[in-house]
Amino acid sequence: MIDAATLLQQDGMAQARAIAGGRIGGAELVAAQLAVIGRLDPEINAFVQVVGSPSPAPGSNAASPLAGACFAVKDNIDVLGWPTHAGLRARQAGAATRTASAAARLEAAGMVFIGKLNMHAVALGATNHNADFGDCHNPRRAGYTPGGSSGGSGAAVAAGLCAIALGTDTMGSVRIPAAYCGVVGFKPGFDQIPVDGVVPLSRLLDHVGILARSVADVTAAYLAMTTDAVDTASGGGDQDKPQTMAFAVPAQRETLAMSDEVRQAYEAAIERIRHQGHSLHEIDLSPYDFTRVRRAGLLLCEAELLDTLAEPLAQRPQALPEDLRAMLNFAAGKSAVDVARALATAVSAGQWLQHRLRGFDGLLLPTAGQTAFPMSEPAPHDQADFTAMANMAGAPAISLPLPVGHEDLPIGLQLIGRRGFDAALLRAAARIEAVLGAV
Amino acid sequence: MIDAATLLQQDGMAQARAIAGGRIGGAELVAAQLAVIGRLDPEINAFVQVVGSPSPAPGSNAASPLAGACFAVKDNIDVLGWPTHAGLRARQAGAATRTASAAARLEAAGMVFIGKLNMHAVALGATNHNADFGDCHNPRRAGYTPGGSSGGSGAAVAAGLCAIALGTDTMGSVRIPAAYCGVVGFKPGFDQIPVDGVVPLSRLLDHVGILARSVADVTAAYLAMTTDAVDTASGGGDQDKPQTMAFAVPAQRETLAMSDEVRQAYEAAIERIRHQGHSLHEIDLSPYDFTRVRRAGLLLCEAELLDTLAEPLAQRPQALPEDLRAMLNFAAGKSAVDVARALATAVSAGQWLQHRLRGFDGLLLPTAGQTAFPMSEPAPHDQADFTAMANMAGAPAISLPLPVGHEDLPIGLQLIGRRGFDAALLRAAARIEAVLGAV
Repeated sequence: MIDAATLLQQDGMAQARAIAGGRIGGAELVAAQLAVIGRLDPEINAFVQVVGSPSPAPGSNAASPLAGACFAVKDNIDVLGWPTHAGLRARQAGAATRTASAAARLEAAGMVFIGKLNMHAVALGATNHNADFGDCHNPRRAGYTPGGSSGGSGAAVAAGLCAIALGTDTMGSVRIPAAYCGVVGFKPGFDQIPVDGVVPLSRLLDHVGILARSVADVTAAYLAMTTDAVDTASGGGDQDKPQTMAFAVPAQRETLAMSDEVRQAYEAAIERIRHQGHSLHEIDLSPYDFTRVRRAGLLLCEAELLDTLAEPLAQRPQALPEDLRAMLNFAAGKSAVDVARALATAVSAGQWLQHRLRGFDGLLLPTAGQTAFPMSEPAPHDQADFTAMANMAGAPAISLPLPVGHEDLPIGLQLIGRRGFDAALLRAAARIEAVLGAV
Repeated sequence: MIDAATLLQQDGMAQARAIAGGRIGGAELVAAQLAVIGRLDPEINAFVQVVGSPSPAPGSNAASPLAGACFAVKDNIDVLGWPTHAGLRARQAGAATRTASAAARLEAAGMVFIGKLNMHAVALGATNHNADFGDCHNPRRAGYTPGGSSGGSGAAVAAGLCAIALGTDTMGSVRIPAAYCGVVGFKPGFDQIPVDGVVPLSRLLDHVGILARSVADVTAAYLAMTTDAVDTASGGGDQDKPQTMAFAVPAQRETLAMSDEVRQAYEAAIERIRHQGHSLHEIDLSPYDFTRVRRAGLLLCEAELLDTLAEPLAQRPQALPEDLRAMLNFAAGKSAVDVARALATAVSAGQWLQHRLRGFDGLLLPTAGQTAFPMSEPAPHDQADFTAMANMAGAPAISLPLPVGHEDLPIGLQLIGRRGFDAALLRAAARIEAVLGAV
């Protein structure tokens, strides 16, 4: 037999292999997982609710590569019988009447649903301060933010509280907590994981994503949940590509806003990738206006929230967090043409990126320009600047943890691909992960 | 040698073969094309401007399958040195400083640019009434609309005034004139033909499309202009599919609004396709609210026009057509949340369609519920109801002319595919074209 505590620090596929090989019982693993949650989560507060007596879904596929490992979902994703708070009690959510396709497909792959995860209110914000459910904390350093809005998802995976966490990503909300917590975070191409049963923020920009401890786990979970990926469906036209890959990196990297520690880790990573024989090509990002695109994305979220939160905003405005009310008030002062212009900006930015990345295996960027910061500090305005571009394009993007010192805060390396090429991006990410060293 | 007048009624690939085979000189074909325009266009008014002395672009690829044939572009597409009026003199367009990529790529494929085509003002409307450039008429019946907004494109191809016409399609503006004029009209997947150098209407919904006299021509032009198609790039994962195809058709077809003649031709066409051994599967379209989606699409166009037409609207409102002013005034009375809600509706409708068509070679629908109508009659409100769904999904869609009597007005059969599968849709369309009989 194997030590359960050690196993729960490994990735989900290792756990599934241990179960399949008879080195641990499925029920034993789940019980151990619940025990770890019981021990660690009071400090971290990644979960808003944990299952009582979990059991594999009927008809589960025990042969699938994640069978028996545990997953949890961000609390804006429906699970039958559970309320979907989306981080905000003022929404007064009742019990969901069905399970979102994304979660149902993980159960069908034999994974064990284990609970629902803390998040920034209505998925708009990246600190995971949460007055209704309590702040979520970064398991890598006490008192620090896990990022967000899928903060509970990042924290749970980093602390070994589940193997796979589902999150949502509208401007970076899967990748930012992955970077801050030191795990892998993947936002597939638009609608490749179906968004049914997910509380909308901006339907144009919303994506369901996956947080896990390895690219292999992310890939297995993705393949369990998607039915649509063109390059997967066609067998992947580029599997016969030469061994070296071609990555885009920004020219004038010194003009991009990032902290010294992020810059150093990022430059070291691309040097390491180059040293492996892959080619790096500088592309000019100056036509891409980070500030303008961020503001456009935010306005699209805020204006749509004015619609979806109309009822609590009218009936219980004081029950909404102050920062959320401020954003809704800002949008209420905007006009139809302001929103149309924001939409045009977002769509054009996505087109620009899609064309610019043609011929490359991806664009290498930091995931965020900063590491996690103390919960007591304000969030930087440009937190999602490097991530939002992939949402505008509906393109796949992944955050990989960079090697940092044991005491250092995690840093994420982001690889952004082209829409329609999810599987190719995951293959490239697996090779970069190997270059950077296992997590 | 070959009779030029006969050749100019054939498709562009036949013309290119005649040139390549020495049966007609390239200059002779162009001269004959200009002569036909000079003879027929005064009645039709498809062109807003014709070249003086056309010549193949330098560096053109004489080996490409359309080399030597003539193309023209809708007047919302930039050509170096020509004004881009977009159907509205109040925009006060100066000479374009570059040629749109779409047109430049056709020139690079050896096609000969021959002029710019009439359109409904700012591409919003489907009659091609045009006070600034004169109405465009349907070459199939005097006094009837060619449809729109790419009315000049449909009329020019139908009358043999060019082999290939570029159009734009935001809710159906390539496919509707193709259907009304009896030619093939293809709207590729989103951004597969680049939109640079195209006057925007709704950047979310805008597509560049192709009108031609055969699916082979459309395919050759598409391949000359796209660089991105996933299923083309990967060699087409479904080329090994079985000989029979599986098409979706709406259940409850009797509830869809269409004229008796359209219904009869449509039902006969799907019966003919079934008779060839292909399978038809009824899908429930009732969750798709045609009226709501149409209104959402219109509001997205109108609100964005409030921005892009701000200058002429403020300075020269009387120079705008009355119907356009009414639409802009309508949008000016809408709020930020109205536009956000319209965006949510459009995006959700597209997702619904994309998921619903999974597993099918396409959805067979009429292109429009009615045939061309007299220019003196008002346009039906639901003209674009069957076409707009493909714009919401960013999905490829094609209109094929159905067999009708020599004196009858043309009717279009529409095949809508899934985003990411342009090449597969074109292959399916070629097989349907063969079933229906050559145009």
